[in-house]
Amino acid sequence: MPAIYDPATPPRKIGVLGAGQLGRMLALAGYPLGLEFRFLDPAPDSPSRHLGEFVNARYDDEAALARFVDGVDLVTFEFENVPAHVLAFLEDHVPTAPGREALATGQDRLAEKTLFRELGIETPPFATVDSRADLEEAVARIGLPAVLKTRRLGYDGKGQFVLRSAADLDEAWKALGGVPLILEGFVAFDRELSIIAVRGRNGETAFYPLTENHHEGGILRLSLAPAPRLDPALQATAEEYARRVLDRLGYVGVLAIELFQRGGDLLANELAPRVHNSGHWTIEGAETSQFENHLRAICGLPLGQTTPRGYSAMLNLIGTTPNPAKVLAVPNAHLHLYGKAPRPGRKLGHVTVRADNEDELERMRLGIRGSGIGS
Amino acid sequence: MPAIYDPATPPRKIGVLGAGQLGRMLALAGYPLGLEFRFLDPAPDSPSRHLGEFVNARYDDEAALARFVDGVDLVTFEFENVPAHVLAFLEDHVPTAPGREALATGQDRLAEKTLFRELGIETPPFATVDSRADLEEAVARIGLPAVLKTRRLGYDGKGQFVLRSAADLDEAWKALGGVPLILEGFVAFDRELSIIAVRGRNGETAFYPLTENHHEGGILRLSLAPAPRLDPALQATAEEYARRVLDRLGYVGVLAIELFQRGGDLLANELAPRVHNSGHWTIEGAETSQFENHLRAICGLPLGQTTPRGYSAMLNLIGTTPNPAKVLAVPNAHLHLYGKAPRPGRKLGHVTVRADNEDELERMRLGIRGSGIGS
Repeated sequence: MPAIYDPATPPRKIGVLGAGQLGRMLALAGYPLGLEFRFLDPAPDSPSRHLGEFVNARYDDEAALARFVDGVDLVTFEFENVPAHVLAFLEDHVPTAPGREALATGQDRLAEKTLFRELGIETPPFATVDSRADLEEAVARIGLPAVLKTRRLGYDGKGQFVLRSAADLDEAWKALGGVPLILEGFVAFDRELSIIAVRGRNGETAFYPLTENHHEGGILRLSLAPAPRLDPALQATAEEYARRVLDRLGYVGVLAIELFQRGGDLLANELAPRVHNSGHWTIEGAETSQFENHLRAICGLPLGQTTPRGYSAMLNLIGTTPNPAKVLAVPNAHLHLYGKAPRPGRKLGHVTVRADNEDELERMRLGIRGSGIGS
Repeated sequence: MPAIYDPATPPRKIGVLGAGQLGRMLALAGYPLGLEFRFLDPAPDSPSRHLGEFVNARYDDEAALARFVDGVDLVTFEFENVPAHVLAFLEDHVPTAPGREALATGQDRLAEKTLFRELGIETPPFATVDSRADLEEAVARIGLPAVLKTRRLGYDGKGQFVLRSAADLDEAWKALGGVPLILEGFVAFDRELSIIAVRGRNGETAFYPLTENHHEGGILRLSLAPAPRLDPALQATAEEYARRVLDRLGYVGVLAIELFQRGGDLLANELAPRVHNSGHWTIEGAETSQFENHLRAICGLPLGQTTPRGYSAMLNLIGTTPNPAKVLAVPNAHLHLYGKAPRPGRKLGHVTVRADNEDELERMRLGIRGSGIGS
C-alpha cells in the first residue's frame, strides 16, 4: 500500500532520488522555504552532495534505500529512470511526488506518445519496434528518414540511431536491437519549444511561457524565454495540452513537455516528469523558479507566479567551463556551475543572460557567444 | 605575517566565521558560482549547518580554528565581533576579506564615527565615555535626550540605554558602566536609510539604491527599496560617502552604512563590514544579490549589476514565523526561513514582496501586514 500524503503535517525534510544538478538547484530553492534535504545517488561526486545529507549508494541497494527514506517526509525525483521495484519500495514507506503513473509514463517513449495521442495531442508518427520484422514494417509505414530509439533510458541523444536509407536498418538493429524500441518519423517543424508546467496538490496549475530550444548532437545548448515572437494562441494551445497531461496523471510537481512548432500547430515529442533543463532560465527570468514551484507543489503550498522578468537566454556549459571572471564580466549574466568534473559532452553548468527586451537580449547573446562562452 | 591573497589561484572553498542566516544566504548564492563552504559557529543548530562543512566550536577554540582554516582558500565573516587574537590567528593562516582594519572599525562605535568624521561625513554628535565623570561631561556637551551605548558587541538594540533626564545617569551607569562607552546625541531626522556598497579586489565599486528602514525596539522590521521618493542627489551623496569609507579601508566585499536623512543631508550612524539585513531585498529585488556580490568581490570576480528589479519591501519575521502557505499565497511574495527555533525577538526569517511600481508595492505591503505577517 503506497504511503498517503497527509496535508495536516506539511513536509520538512525532502528525500531526492538523484543528486545531480537538478537536485542541487532544488535544494538551493528549498532552504529558503524552510526545507531540508537528503539525496541518494550512486556517484560519489554528485553535485548535490554538499547541500544536505547524502546517501552514496546504488538506487537498488535496499539497505541504502531504507536509510534514505527513514525520517524524510516526502520523496521526489530529479531523474525519471527509477526502477519499478525501487519506486514500489519508496512508495510503501513514504509519499512520493510525482506518482507511479507519471514516472512510468516518463520512462517510456511509447507510453508518452500513446498518452499524448489519447489526450488529443498531435505527435510525430511513431511505431513500436520489438523485432527486426517490426522495424521493416514500421519503416514501410512511417517512411525515411526516421529515428530508431530505445523506449527506455535514453537521454541527451543517447540510445538513438538515425535511419536515412534502407541500408541503415541492419546497422541500426545491430546497435539497438534486443530491447523495446520505437521508430519515430521526422517531421518538418519551424522550431523546438518546451513548456514547463506545474500542478499543486489541490489541482491548481501554472505555466511558464513557452521556451525556444536549440539542440546540438541531441544535447540542449540554448534556450530563449519567452520564445521569440510568441503567439498567445500558441501559448494557449501549449497550456491546454499540458493541463490535459497534468490532470490525466493526477500530477503533483513540475512537468516539462518538449514540442515541435509547425505553423500554428504543436506536436508533442516527449515529457519529463521533473524539473527540466529548458526551465533553468526561470531562476532569474521568472518571478518564481521552476525549482521553487516544484517544491511548493509537492509540499502542498500555493504555487508562485510564473510571470517572466524580461527576456532570458540560457546557455548550457558542455564539456568544459569558461573562466568565471569572463562570464561574470557580461552585464546581467548569471553563472550556475554544478561542481562537476569536466568530461566531453557533460553538462557542467549554465549561464542565464537577462534583458529587458528581445533586441537587447539578442545583442547580449551574440556578445556572450562571441566571447566563446557556451558555444 | 598575514597570508596574502593570490589572484592567480581563485578561491574555491570559503571559510565563513559564523553560521547564521547571513552565512546561509552567502552559501545559497555561492554554490552557483562553483564555491564550497565551511562554517565555524558555537551554536549547534546554526542556520548554515546543512549548507557546507560545519565546525561547531567556540570562536576562540584554537584547535577548532586550525581545523576550520585547514584547506579553505579564503576566510570571510558573517558577523564583525571577531576577537582580535582570533582574527590574528586566521590572518596568519589564510587570506581574509574584509581585512583587519575594517573589522576593527566595525567592532567599535567610536572608531566608526571617528572614521566618518575624518572622511568629512557628518554624524550625530558623540563623545567617548570611560568614566562616570566622562558621562557628566558628555551629557553637558551633547545635551539630552541622548543614548549611552557600549562601544563594542552591541546589536539589535542591545547594550544601549536612553537618557531622557539627568536622573537617568545613575541607572544608565549602573547598567552599562565598566566597559568602554559612547554617548550619542539624538538628532531630528526624516527617516532612516542604509546603503549597501561593494568593492572588488581591483578597487571597482558598486552601490545598491538607498533603502528606507523601519526599526522597532532596536530591531529592523521593514525595508523599502529603492527608498520611496529617492532623490538622485541623495543617492549620489550616499555613494560618495560609501566610496570614501571603502577606499579608506582598502575594503574588499560588501559593506553597509546606516544613515539618517535630514532634508538633503545624510548623517552616518554606523557601518557593518558584512552583508546586512537591510540588503536582503536584493535577492529578488536586484539583478545581483548582496550575497553574490560579496562573494564575487572577495573571490576577485567582476562585480554584478546592482540595478533594482522593480520595487521591494522586506519584512523581518521576528520571534514567530507565519504559516508559509499564508505568505506564499501573496502574489510576488518570497519567503526566506532561516531554520531557527522560535524565540522572542529572534530573527527567524524574512519575506520580500516585489512590485513593478511604488503604488502596487504599497498595496501589497498593506495586504501582507493586514494578514498579520511580519507585523
